[in-house]
Amino acid sequence: MQLAMIQDKIVLIEALEPVYLDRGIFFGDGVYEVVRSYNGRIFALAEHLQRFSRSLNAIQITGIDIDLIRGRVRRAFDSAGIANAKIYFHITRGSGLRNHVGDAGLKPNFFLTVTELPDTTQEKTKGIAVSTHPDWRWKRCDIKSLNLLANVLARQDAARKGCAEAIFVDETGFITEGSASALFAIFGQKLQTAPLTANILPSITRKFVLAAGKNIGLEAVEKSLTPEQASSADELFIAVTTKDIVPVVRFDNKVISDGTPGRYTKLLIQEFQKFVI
Amino acid sequence: MQLAMIQDKIVLIEALEPVYLDRGIFFGDGVYEVVRSYNGRIFALAEHLQRFSRSLNAIQITGIDIDLIRGRVRRAFDSAGIANAKIYFHITRGSGLRNHVGDAGLKPNFFLTVTELPDTTQEKTKGIAVSTHPDWRWKRCDIKSLNLLANVLARQDAARKGCAEAIFVDETGFITEGSASALFAIFGQKLQTAPLTANILPSITRKFVLAAGKNIGLEAVEKSLTPEQASSADELFIAVTTKDIVPVVRFDNKVISDGTPGRYTKLLIQEFQKFVI
Repeated sequence: MQLAMIQDKIVLIEALEPVYLDRGIFFGDGVYEVVRSYNGRIFALAEHLQRFSRSLNAIQITGIDIDLIRGRVRRAFDSAGIANAKIYFHITRGSGLRNHVGDAGLKPNFFLTVTELPDTTQEKTKGIAVSTHPDWRWKRCDIKSLNLLANVLARQDAARKGCAEAIFVDETGFITEGSASALFAIFGQKLQTAPLTANILPSITRKFVLAAGKNIGLEAVEKSLTPEQASSADELFIAVTTKDIVPVVRFDNKVISDGTPGRYTKLLIQEFQKFVI
Repeated sequence: MQLAMIQDKIVLIEALEPVYLDRGIFFGDGVYEVVRSYNGRIFALAEHLQRFSRSLNAIQITGIDIDLIRGRVRRAFDSAGIANAKIYFHITRGSGLRNHVGDAGLKPNFFLTVTELPDTTQEKTKGIAVSTHPDWRWKRCDIKSLNLLANVLARQDAARKGCAEAIFVDETGFITEGSASALFAIFGQKLQTAPLTANILPSITRKFVLAAGKNIGLEAVEKSLTPEQASSADELFIAVTTKDIVPVVRFDNKVISDGTPGRYTKLLIQEFQKFVI
């Protein structure tokens, strides 16, 4: 008699809700996206869905109709009625008894949440502290997968140090990205961030930040930074879908410039807003 | 109004079963073990629970009473009444709205299955084919975590090539381990496998295989192998909890020796059985 146990309760495997046998939980066998709305409008949904499609292809989850997913995202967003919403969604390969290969007949599982974004005024006006952590992640961070334990452990380490974000440093001593963000440095009028050839996610916010930088006359430099270089930057900030641009004023206990958000960073925050209207 | 969506059905977040918000699925934020029974007796449960405890500590999931877990494993196994059972169990950090750090009040989730092991007579008598795959896994494979997408992708690649297991090769050109097994090679009377200093799981079956090797007069060599070295071995096999020892007769299309399970491998399979009685 094949059984399952949830906490201390024994149940028949046949009686389990499929979610208990989700390959998302057994293996992290799925991919996800996070989009947000600004004042009632979802921002850059097309770009996020395009990346989602690439992630699905990369792990060979097939037969997903992206238009159907777009429809679900819009319907859930409209139903929630939240002006500044965070929309998270994932697709896993499906539910079934645990085996690595996965049976042929698996049906992908879709899950989504719409939640209210917290106010980020204070972070944006005062800036945040970040700390570095070894980049323990896998070698396919170009795929936005559910394998995020290295990100969780790094973020917990940062939190213990009183920091709001962890910045990954790879084995060669270069910064890749944050646990849930991209890192940017400003030197003079140069705006520097890691190239997409590094083991990083092709960040959509990154793309808009580079465009905003161009609009205010900054020259883009796609080149990896060391922690030493980052901590000596004129300005630092992170870019993340849910908060767009957040100034970084402390990097591993080193105060950046005068410890307040930099001039160009503030201009970029304003410039970014032009994209989201 | 904060909402969730399961497939195309909208539900209130408050109405969700906690499992839908399990950090296991959002992040793979949990660890697991697999034990098996031979003829009604669980094998090496103490060793597996010890490793489980180490994994929990490594990702700072605290407050788990291992004796309680032992009791649950035994109770579920006794209830199932399966002589040759596979017992899988995991603990995740808990359920909650998705955020990397995790709230302080999270309560860990325990989940277990007891299923019947398939018969492995054919694999053991005929041997299996394996194929290599780049080791895309994270850098903490000493932790038995739920972040297993690299393992899934490698195993799917192997399956497409008609192989039963994928063997990981790291960036320096050395074999680490299989997607769900340890790899062993025999050269003369030497039994070789990767040292535990590599980015591999401290396999419990590995420990018993090395003891069995000693019993039949093989000298243990803990040293990493290249694919070239492995494919020129006198004998090859994988070691995995659910099947103990399975001969490998083909490695990336290269036939090992005469293409049948080797003499020492067969002796090791017999010797291993002495431990499980």
